[in-house]
Order: sequence, then structure tokens, then C-alpha cells
Amino acid sequence: MAFRFEILKKDHFSKSRLGRIETDHGSFSTPAFLPVGTQGTVKSLTPEELVEVGVEAILGNTYHLYLRPGHETIGRLGGLHSFIHWERPILTDSGGYQIFSLGELTKISEEGVTFRSHLDGSTHFLTPEKVTEIQRILGSDIAMVLDECVPYPSSYEYVKTSIKLTTRWAKRCLQERKETDSALFAIVQGGVYRDLREESAQALVEMNFQGYAIGGLSVGEPKSMMLDVLEWTIPHLPENAPRYLMGVGTPEDILDAIMLGIDLFDCVLPTRNARNGMLFTSSGKMSIKQAQYAEDRRPIDEPCLCYTCRHYSRAYLRHLHLANEILSSRLNTIHNLFYYMNFMKHIQGAIRENHLLDFYKAHHSHSNGLEIENPAQHHTTWG
Amino acid sequence: MAFRFEILKKDHFSKSRLGRIETDHGSFSTPAFLPVGTQGTVKSLTPEELVEVGVEAILGNTYHLYLRPGHETIGRLGGLHSFIHWERPILTDSGGYQIFSLGELTKISEEGVTFRSHLDGSTHFLTPEKVTEIQRILGSDIAMVLDECVPYPSSYEYVKTSIKLTTRWAKRCLQERKETDSALFAIVQGGVYRDLREESAQALVEMNFQGYAIGGLSVGEPKSMMLDVLEWTIPHLPENAPRYLMGVGTPEDILDAIMLGIDLFDCVLPTRNARNGMLFTSSGKMSIKQAQYAEDRRPIDEPCLCYTCRHYSRAYLRHLHLANEILSSRLNTIHNLFYYMNFMKHIQGAIRENHLLDFYKAHHSHSNGLEIENPAQHHTTWG
Repeated sequence: MAFRFEILKKDHFSKSRLGRIETDHGSFSTPAFLPVGTQGTVKSLTPEELVEVGVEAILGNTYHLYLRPGHETIGRLGGLHSFIHWERPILTDSGGYQIFSLGELTKISEEGVTFRSHLDGSTHFLTPEKVTEIQRILGSDIAMVLDECVPYPSSYEYVKTSIKLTTRWAKRCLQERKETDSALFAIVQGGVYRDLREESAQALVEMNFQGYAIGGLSVGEPKSMMLDVLEWTIPHLPENAPRYLMGVGTPEDILDAIMLGIDLFDCVLPTRNARNGMLFTSSGKMSIKQAQYAEDRRPIDEPCLCYTCRHYSRAYLRHLHLANEILSSRLNTIHNLFYYMNFMKHIQGAIRENHLLDFYKAHHSHSNGLEIENPAQHHTTWG
Repeated sequence: MAFRFEILKKDHFSKSRLGRIETDHGSFSTPAFLPVGTQGTVKSLTPEELVEVGVEAILGNTYHLYLRPGHETIGRLGGLHSFIHWERPILTDSGGYQIFSLGELTKISEEGVTFRSHLDGSTHFLTPEKVTEIQRILGSDIAMVLDECVPYPSSYEYVKTSIKLTTRWAKRCLQERKETDSALFAIVQGGVYRDLREESAQALVEMNFQGYAIGGLSVGEPKSMMLDVLEWTIPHLPENAPRYLMGVGTPEDILDAIMLGIDLFDCVLPTRNARNGMLFTSSGKMSIKQAQYAEDRRPIDEPCLCYTCRHYSRAYLRHLHLANEILSSRLNTIHNLFYYMNFMKHIQGAIRENHLLDFYKAHHSHSNGLEIENPAQHHTTWG
């Protein structure tokens, strides 16, 4: 297992860093945004198209792949990379977020978590060891520990008890890890309580993981609270390990978090929005179904160089969306992912050139910065 | 308007011909199979992918485009080719087949046909002149006359009256046609009655269209009856004009019809089957959802060189299908259209080399030649 994180440049005016993560399946630049390949495919696109829009690494959902087609099937077929025809890095989550989203169907114990499949109602029991094994069999390049994801809001007492369990589970994942395994990242929890976030971070850092995620955010809390949690937590994480903000988010949230020192992101927002006809542009969001675009010959975003903007009018994209055509999802997804990847490349360049603050100001003056109604919806649950 | 049909070679042992059709948007070889782009997209694929699988010309459905987004919108946006980013030939049907499929909602008169939109229930009245104008505004390279499509079975008396109306309507389409318009093809009707087919063909041929379609087949009649109708009708069509069998069909039906002298085909079968997980292979049809493929590393069809077969296993394609992923429709459609286009290229080559009879025998011994339960379903109705 080859895993290395190198910081190439630190910004002068913020805590952001330009870096590079190396894995057995190649390297990628950070800050990085990983599109979500829920069920072994970033919805509607081929791997070649992901590369064309600039994607360097993707996320796979352990929960979904464990249930269907099954990690053992994927293992026998040569692992996830080979199965889905994606030769670049894959980060897999632990499935915790999806399992705890099942709510009533989920029972937690010291040993692990029992839940019922959303597909067929069958009962499953997963432990930290099992989740580590599943990710090994999938062959992911970056695996995540099993954590308890507490909802927002949760009481101080509940969260205090929960982070101790998450710490014990993280230790068990680490013990299960083999030298030949992928990198393993811990997940800091602690709700919106400063001392619990600090306690969680410190306990995990002592165990010396290869990277640290900040979980339990973008689950319905106000955005200012998310930024508070990042400000409290990040100083307790080691400088030389990647920091991953799970399930975030909008371009604006990503930029804010990068300025606080986050290196990795994943979110279904660009891909899911695309399928719903919500497009990201240099002047804000656009709903392609609006009647005003019925005969609009312009591309989605005039400065954009993506395949969709080079060949198709808003009028055609509106038609495809209203006609519920598969090509609508494809062309919109290409555009939104290109927008996100281009956004990340600009941020990387701005850090390199010490222009990040200018980029920040320019982005906020050009974008309408629409707030998101329910951030919890941007994690992957059922795809 | 440039339209030219040239016969390059006639087969020695059958009535099949190798030809070339030239249009303002380039030329294509015949016998040709045109995939169906119902609503301005061959479902799930981009134009570049169509070219990659070997497609040279596509069909657009006037009924669907007239209702949504509207031919006038498409006209103002520069025509159908520009709207959908397809620069090669487009054949448009007249909408008759879809309108008459509406059944109860449709009323026919000498002047034209009144129907209610399947989208919003709004009432529309189309005449032969209007249908010709719509296709002109769409900018199709080959337009079809408005005909009455009679169901199977229909009484001799009904069909006898109907073909006279179809002839009068064809004449009105021809009169409406302008010099600058695309080519206009007539449609022979006559049900399963030999003398009515002959009468319909003769009446239309007298008017000197640029091509002749045979309509009202593949609507539920036995296959032997379809072949009878072709044998009765084709001798009454001019040698030097293309002959188009609408809405057909399976590879076996296409091959049989080519041997009787048909040059053009369209059908939703390869694309619709793909979305339902039914794949064409060199050894017959395959249903990708079957449990036997759960861990099958092989491509759909080992000799196939399509993108799907070069990169994906049956196991992955089965998983995508069961997970209802968009990529499933895409990869299956690429394979099935590649299969069809490859089939047509082999037929063209066999005619050129006088090997068509050998090809016919080989195809029937290698393929399981599954019969289709309900051929009527292979026309485009609601996409």
C-alpha cells in the first residue's frame, strides 16, 4: 500500500493548502472534490467522461456496494476499480452515514450496528472489523472507519457518550487494518459541541491515522455552526495529514472550508442537481426547466468549455429535461461536474499563486450564492 | 435540395441491392437501419456515440417534435439538425402512425385528422399539407406523406376505402412540396390484401415520389403475412427508388426483407430492448438480468468490438441493470446499436461480394432467431 500526502504550498492569507495525495492507483491534487459513485457508477457518466471533465478520484458507497452486488462478488471480479472500469483513486466511506440514516431500522451496540436493508428488508450486522474488511475486499485506496453519525440536533450527553464509542470503533478498525490495506481515515464527531469535537479529534489523532475526516456536518445545522465546528476542530488535527469534510457541499461551502484548512470533499450535489435540472454557472444557479429558456440559443454558461456548453443550447437542454430524456441527465451532469472541477482547479491555482483571497472575493461577487434549503439532502443516502 | 439514390450493386441470388442515398446532410449506404430519435435524441446516446457505433442516419418523430418542443420552436432555433447537434441525414415520419395509435382520441376526415395530445389532452388538427410543412420546418432530409395506418386485422372494405384516402393525401403532400424541400416518400398501404397493396403501390408510383415506404406492417400480423405483402408489393415499386419498410424490426426480419429488395429500416427494438436489458449477440438474445451472469467476467458478446464489450463484464452490466442506473441504458444501447450497425455492414459487404445467401445461412445457424411476441410494440409510439 502506497499512501502519501504532500503539502506543496500553503496560502499566505488563509489556512488553505495545496497538496498531492499518492495512492496505488495514482495521485491527485488537493483541495479535491470527489464525485459520488453510489452504486459503482457516478450516475449517468462513463469513467472516460469523468476524466474528461477533470475528475481525478471518486467516492464509492460501501453500504450500497455491500448490499448489491455484494463486496464478495466485487472481490471475486477483481475489486471495485476493475469492476467499474475506473483505474484512478477511489475513496470508500464506511457505510455508517447510510446505516444511521435508516433510523428506526437501526440498532447500535458496543459490538456494532444492526440494520435492515432498504432494498429487501433483510437484517445485517456490521462491526468496525467487518467494515474494514469490506473496504479491503473492495480494494479502495482510502477507507473510512465506522463511526456513529449522530443527528442534528442531539443532546450534549448523547453526543458525549457517542464520541467515546466512535473512538473505540476507530481503534478496532485500526487494529483490523493490515499493512497491505489502503489508507485508513478516522472520523471526528462531536456534534456542535466545542469540547466534544476537541476531545474526539485528540483521541483519534493519538492513534495516528493517515487522514482525518470531520463527520456529522451538513446534516441540517446552520452554516455558521458548520464553520464554527471546523474552526474548533482543525487546529487539533495534524498539519501533515489530509482533512476531509464529508458530504459538503455547495461551491461556497467548499471554498469556506478550504480557507479553514480542509483538503477533501465529496457531495452528491453537482450530480443530483444535474438530474433535477439545476445547473451551476459562473453567474449563479440556473433551473433549466424555466420557460425563459424555451428558445434560448445560448449554452448554459457562456464562458464554460465543457462538452455540453460547446454543443447544446439551453433550449435543447430544457426540452430534454421536460421530455425526461436520459441525455438530459448526462449533459447536465457533465456540465455540473466540469463546473466543480474547474472551480477546484481555480482554487488550487489561487493557492499556488497566493490569490485565494482575491478568488474568494471574485466568486462571492459573481455568484448569487444561493443558500441551500436542506443540506442534509446532499449526503448520499439512497443514491 | 439534393437527393439522389444510386444502386451500386445488385445481388445475384436475391432481390437485394447495395446503394447509396445522398442528401444535403451527407450520404449513407443502403440497406440502412435508422435508429429512432423519438423526441430529438436517440435515447441515452450522444450524436458522437451514434457515429462511433456506425450510425449514418437517424429517424425523428414528427408527432413528438410537433407537440414538444414544437416544430416552430425548432425552426426558429435553426432546424432539427442544429437543435439536436446531429449533422448527418434525418428522416422524419409524418406522425400518422402515432396519431392513429391514439385510437379513440383520433377522428379522421377527408381534410385531415383530429387528435388529442397524449401529453396534455389538447386537441390538434393535422392535414397532409400541414404535415409536409412541419417536416419542412424541421428541416428533415427525407419526409414522409401523411397516411392512414389501418390496424390489423381490418376488413377488406375498410382498407379499400382507406387506401384511396391515403392516395389522395399523398397527392396533397406532393402538391404542398416545394423545390427546396427535402425528399418526399409515399407510403403504400393495403393491409394484407394483395390487390389493395398492388392498387396502392400503382397509384402512388404514378405520382413519382423519390422513395416508397411500405406501411401498415409489423402491427401484429404473422411474419409470413408480412413477407407475402412485401413479395406482392415490391414488384410494383420502381427499381431506381429506395424502398423503406417502416417499423421493422428484428435482425431476422430485416435480413428477410433485404432479400426481397428493401433498402431502409427503422425500429425502436435495439434501443428499447437495451433499456430493458435485452441484448443482441452473435449467438442470440441475452437477458442481462439473469442470475447466471452475477459473476460472469466475460463481455456481452466475446467477438464484439463495441465500447461496452471492450470495457465491461456481464456481471457489471447486470449490476447496473438491477440497480436501475442510467449507465445501464447507455452501455446496453451502445452494444445493441453496434450489433445492428455491424449486421448492416456485413449485409452490405455480402451483397457487394455476392455472399448474401451464405451470410443468410450462417446467421440463421448461429442465431437462436427468437421470435417476437408482439411486433406492433416495435414502432415508436410514445417513445
